[in-house]
Amino acid sequence: MTRWDTVAIVGVGLIGGSIGLALRQRGLCREVVGIGRRAESLRAAEQYGTVSRSTLDLAAGVARADLIVICTPVGQITEHARAIASACRPDALITDAGSSKQQIVRELEFQLARGTRFIGSHPLAGSEKRGPAEADGNLLVDRMVVITPTELTARADAESVREFWSSLGARTCEMSPEAHDAAIAITSHCPHVVAAALASTAGPSEAPLIASGWRDTTRIASGDPALWVDILLSNRGAVTAACQQFQQELSELCRAIDAADERALFQLLEKAKRSRDAVAN
Amino acid sequence: MTRWDTVAIVGVGLIGGSIGLALRQRGLCREVVGIGRRAESLRAAEQYGTVSRSTLDLAAGVARADLIVICTPVGQITEHARAIASACRPDALITDAGSSKQQIVRELEFQLARGTRFIGSHPLAGSEKRGPAEADGNLLVDRMVVITPTELTARADAESVREFWSSLGARTCEMSPEAHDAAIAITSHCPHVVAAALASTAGPSEAPLIASGWRDTTRIASGDPALWVDILLSNRGAVTAACQQFQQELSELCRAIDAADERALFQLLEKAKRSRDAVAN
Repeated sequence: MTRWDTVAIVGVGLIGGSIGLALRQRGLCREVVGIGRRAESLRAAEQYGTVSRSTLDLAAGVARADLIVICTPVGQITEHARAIASACRPDALITDAGSSKQQIVRELEFQLARGTRFIGSHPLAGSEKRGPAEADGNLLVDRMVVITPTELTARADAESVREFWSSLGARTCEMSPEAHDAAIAITSHCPHVVAAALASTAGPSEAPLIASGWRDTTRIASGDPALWVDILLSNRGAVTAACQQFQQELSELCRAIDAADERALFQLLEKAKRSRDAVAN
Repeated sequence: MTRWDTVAIVGVGLIGGSIGLALRQRGLCREVVGIGRRAESLRAAEQYGTVSRSTLDLAAGVARADLIVICTPVGQITEHARAIASACRPDALITDAGSSKQQIVRELEFQLARGTRFIGSHPLAGSEKRGPAEADGNLLVDRMVVITPTELTARADAESVREFWSSLGARTCEMSPEAHDAAIAITSHCPHVVAAALASTAGPSEAPLIASGWRDTTRIASGDPALWVDILLSNRGAVTAACQQFQQELSELCRAIDAADERALFQLLEKAKRSRDAVAN
């Protein structure tokens, strides 16, 4: 298993903090440096033991790192990657944890120097929780991390990033940034939009009749609005396409209900059940 | 607390079985008679102790009961209520557990003799599980049961039905059948349609990227298709109205995403989060 000397984590919230905690608990590196923009968050990160030291100075924080993981909101990742690339060791490996990839990865291909070793990652470990206090060294155990190398990625670098996530207990797979974004729009971004629309449909007068079904179906609508504005707009095309596909499925169901077409409705509900049961419990 | 002599339960699946188990465990009646259409289900019900005796003969099963609870699928409830009314004691109290109320309650107002003591109920304790093996004597504890008396209901009868559900540990409230159906369309029926559409949107190629958000949002799509055809069509008008309201919320979100309107998207997601957080954790 690869061991690292110094891992720098930019953004020490739920994901960044959990990565730091896992690295330290598993003894996978000598030092975890936490980098953030608020002294308060960094103090909390040190207090919860998610990093071994911390700094507000991005350039100083990444200077000696051999691995740098960018865990900031999606809208800030390319900006941070550029700043990191001009301050880190030339042989440092850089990855991120952003939940859309095409915009980030393709922009950086034109903005980073050719030798920069950046590979996009997306750990599927979202939660409506936030902040260093929620960090959990086992957050990534058995979770999927998608790695999105491109034609310009050195094979060995993709392999190192894969090993890094594996060493935290995660499962990994590789996809192109485009394939990742289309799939995640369907499995995560469109469901978020749908859950939000559903949550907004109910008002105080329905409150006594809220049961576990509604609670489950709308749970992700509790996520941070600012974070999700960022995510949804960074994958706008694929999200729009996924929502259109969803609306088409919904229209068919509504048409069958409106027409009291038992047979069509049964077939549509059965297709949905098969699709659900094939994937998850 | 009211004690009953003989409670007859028509349909001994998850809900009927759980009611029987709760009555017996809490010592609330002398005898629980289970009535069903398949000898196999009745044998299972006796075996799991959810009823003290059972019969395939509806008329014989209800003949001596002072309380009769109809727990069959929504589409069969009025038919069963008519058969029960002509076979039971004239002073027997009849209620049901159907998840839509207007069609059932209003039809029965014209079909049952004036003296028949029928009051509609809806225990909000759905589950994607089914069958007597899943019965749980605590299923109704702290769950909401909506009772839907009408202008024709004797106050004392509504009170007896309320006490019955309370004695099983449930919370209760009263609504008109129409208000119940409009509210439940928003909190249960429309979410079911939405979850089904979402489940159908994902295919095998997205399977590796399925995470907990998708699993939660689509969980109810695992419910029995035949049961849900029944439920959705029995509340067709209100379901259609709720789905239209949902589609309008969704369109606004999609419009903001498509236009990359950060401010509008933030406000919509924040409204959704407020609505979600006001109601549930």
